[in-house]
Amino acid sequence: MARTASLSGFPEWLPEERLVELHVLDTLRRVFELHGFGSIETRAVETVGQLLRKGEIDKEVYGLSRLQEDEGANPVKGGKADPHALALHFDLTVPFARYVVENAGYLAFPFRRYQIQKVWRGERPQEGRAREFTQADIDVVGDGELPFRYDVEIALVIAEALSALPIPDFRLRINNRKLAEGFYRGIGLEDTAGVLRSIDKLEKVGPAKVAELLQEELGATDEQAQKALQLAGIRTEDTSFVAQVRTLGVSNDLLDEGLNELEQVIDAAVQRAPGKVVADLSIARGLDYYTGTVVETVLVGHEQLGSICSGGRYDALASKGNRKFPGVGLSIGVTRLVSRILSQDLAKASRSVPTAVLVALASDDSWDAAQDVAAQLRSRGIPTEVAAKAEKFGKQIKFADRRGIPFVWFTDDDGTHQVKDIRSGEQVAAAPETWAPPSEDLTVQVATAAQVATAV
Amino acid sequence: MARTASLSGFPEWLPEERLVELHVLDTLRRVFELHGFGSIETRAVETVGQLLRKGEIDKEVYGLSRLQEDEGANPVKGGKADPHALALHFDLTVPFARYVVENAGYLAFPFRRYQIQKVWRGERPQEGRAREFTQADIDVVGDGELPFRYDVEIALVIAEALSALPIPDFRLRINNRKLAEGFYRGIGLEDTAGVLRSIDKLEKVGPAKVAELLQEELGATDEQAQKALQLAGIRTEDTSFVAQVRTLGVSNDLLDEGLNELEQVIDAAVQRAPGKVVADLSIARGLDYYTGTVVETVLVGHEQLGSICSGGRYDALASKGNRKFPGVGLSIGVTRLVSRILSQDLAKASRSVPTAVLVALASDDSWDAAQDVAAQLRSRGIPTEVAAKAEKFGKQIKFADRRGIPFVWFTDDDGTHQVKDIRSGEQVAAAPETWAPPSEDLTVQVATAAQVATAV
Repeated sequence: MARTASLSGFPEWLPEERLVELHVLDTLRRVFELHGFGSIETRAVETVGQLLRKGEIDKEVYGLSRLQEDEGANPVKGGKADPHALALHFDLTVPFARYVVENAGYLAFPFRRYQIQKVWRGERPQEGRAREFTQADIDVVGDGELPFRYDVEIALVIAEALSALPIPDFRLRINNRKLAEGFYRGIGLEDTAGVLRSIDKLEKVGPAKVAELLQEELGATDEQAQKALQLAGIRTEDTSFVAQVRTLGVSNDLLDEGLNELEQVIDAAVQRAPGKVVADLSIARGLDYYTGTVVETVLVGHEQLGSICSGGRYDALASKGNRKFPGVGLSIGVTRLVSRILSQDLAKASRSVPTAVLVALASDDSWDAAQDVAAQLRSRGIPTEVAAKAEKFGKQIKFADRRGIPFVWFTDDDGTHQVKDIRSGEQVAAAPETWAPPSEDLTVQVATAAQVATAV
Repeated sequence: MARTASLSGFPEWLPEERLVELHVLDTLRRVFELHGFGSIETRAVETVGQLLRKGEIDKEVYGLSRLQEDEGANPVKGGKADPHALALHFDLTVPFARYVVENAGYLAFPFRRYQIQKVWRGERPQEGRAREFTQADIDVVGDGELPFRYDVEIALVIAEALSALPIPDFRLRINNRKLAEGFYRGIGLEDTAGVLRSIDKLEKVGPAKVAELLQEELGATDEQAQKALQLAGIRTEDTSFVAQVRTLGVSNDLLDEGLNELEQVIDAAVQRAPGKVVADLSIARGLDYYTGTVVETVLVGHEQLGSICSGGRYDALASKGNRKFPGVGLSIGVTRLVSRILSQDLAKASRSVPTAVLVALASDDSWDAAQDVAAQLRSRGIPTEVAAKAEKFGKQIKFADRRGIPFVWFTDDDGTHQVKDIRSGEQVAAAPETWAPPSEDLTVQVATAAQVATAV
């Protein structure tokens, strides 16, 4: 993977790399569907007004204009974005909220969906951050209310999905906005959004600087700042965070509610996803629509890559008149994961093409008979190609070898068949109606470096 | 499907409609991979210079500009598109050609790939024509040369893929540019591109008008115009078109080459895809990069929908210095097909969610035990959801019924299990380690209206 994208921030994969990405996508889909999540896609395009909540441009959004139109079609006019202009979506949550509101009459609530699509952000590209990238989201959305149990379930589904991928060990770091906000109120800090914004900078600037921010920008006392930092310092692999918070001696109803919710998530995770989830009370999440559970996820040993899966509970993302649609969801950064897998050779495909068998040609006239053999193999699910020219067998074997096709099929003049495993050189008699490759050769396998090493 | 898209030309599907689309996409992928085509994706974005060949804007292209930048970022300046500006691709052929040139050193030729992605065209939306739509392309590209046999193979693969879809009967209408151009030269018409452009209008304006065009615009004699129209009138289901062309008494080497090529395609199709392919000498294809085989495809009884699969041979689409990459490929209009399937109820999904089993809750405390049951079912590939609340069983069954989930699982206080088929009402004892639904209920089935009628 020494290649660089010809357009910075717009990665493209070679065929054998794409097989790794496909394996990741197929695996996520399989796990999501096993848990009853159905697929939807939304259009890539939203109106600017839909994307820019509160009128602010807070993401790097790509606006669209038809080249055939004159300059008047520019989505930005006089320094202001036209709310009716079209733009590419920058995540899948905002479009999903619109979809739910538009189609509420046709959906069965609680509505559980997965959505795997590309999104675009015109940010400065760097490792782990592309301008075009794929996200894989799951959400459950209720009509009016949504039981908290879905927060627990979503975390477990994501832990199962990530565990099935060819990636290093990971940790879901989970917190709860109610817990944090209740705590801040309990110590007399009412601008809870401001406190969260400061705490969000903890990893970047360190505790001393955050304490300064809390005091200078939010008027916190030294004691208040220290308490907020003590809370953010709590990180446990079990439910002992509850006792640690209690030790800080703060009482508040919202805090209690948040503690109880986070305890339920961690309690279930300890049983069902042991070692994969931690309660991490420093997690804030920048976006302001979260109202309860918040999640970020790191790859162990690759923490500097940033979060590979984030999200949480939002009680008011979508609404239609008085009708509210609360939801909880998580979003996996597929391109970020796949880029890392490829750049560090964490996993690879067993061959670069789907083909398991190349049917060789003894003469140019045998193409038709070769197609019959291929059709019989394919009818039993065996991916098969037919050579296009009757070159020397050595050349046809080389054709297969260059692609990693494991088997080459030969038909003799007398109509008998042989199949050769070109890796071992072993050649055996075979019938097109019955022969099958070993299951590990039938389709492309994607294995981690560790699995490959073990197999050898 | 009474809903209309909230943004004209940007269709979105409901979950049960998306299942039909997914079935189409999965089917195409399966057939393509069985034939050894590997997946690639290219970025959605190209430079304007790459998209606008010969400097002309001949497609309705969407340019991109970052909203954060000022008006200077407009891709159109002074009525002229900036070649370095970014724009959304309008097909998958142009991006694929760029990909092949950029990655030639990493690919094994002949390189066979499939590519299923969205493309965008800012045209006026109408039935069968959207502004955002999905195409599914297969191509084989050679380095320097590409045996003609791939033209035959591509047509057969597409016939097999379309036959596997829940769509009405279809016809691949195949012609050959060499045949047409050689014929025109043989009758003394040298502006073969001009003749093709006129012939391309045959279905729209009729033969009298085309004869007029040929005479007035290209200076053809009445006899030349009539010969060209006679050629375009030939349509046969077998190779008898060769004799019909010969009867017209024109001789030309390129014509002979084209006749031979088209004969090979039709000959193979008569054997391997009987009834699916016709030689249709009126097919011209507007785009000028085709150099041999050209294909359009109609759904029988839905001809006014336009071509649902088009393409052909191009000998010079991509090149790198002196190195040429000839190719042959076809592109299926997935959104056009799926829109038609849905708008005319040609096929439907057996349920609206992947879930086969809902595990009911007898009490709120039984959620954990229910998760154990669900995990056991899922470990054997059975898509399973757990109820979120211990509502009355009637309500939980209704939850399943609204989604088409066929089975509801109950666990008694004594730990014994029962599973109910909520369609028949039949309820039987079952064990989570061994019970499985009938295979037709395991995953969502998509059947044509005819298949559904037969089953009932």
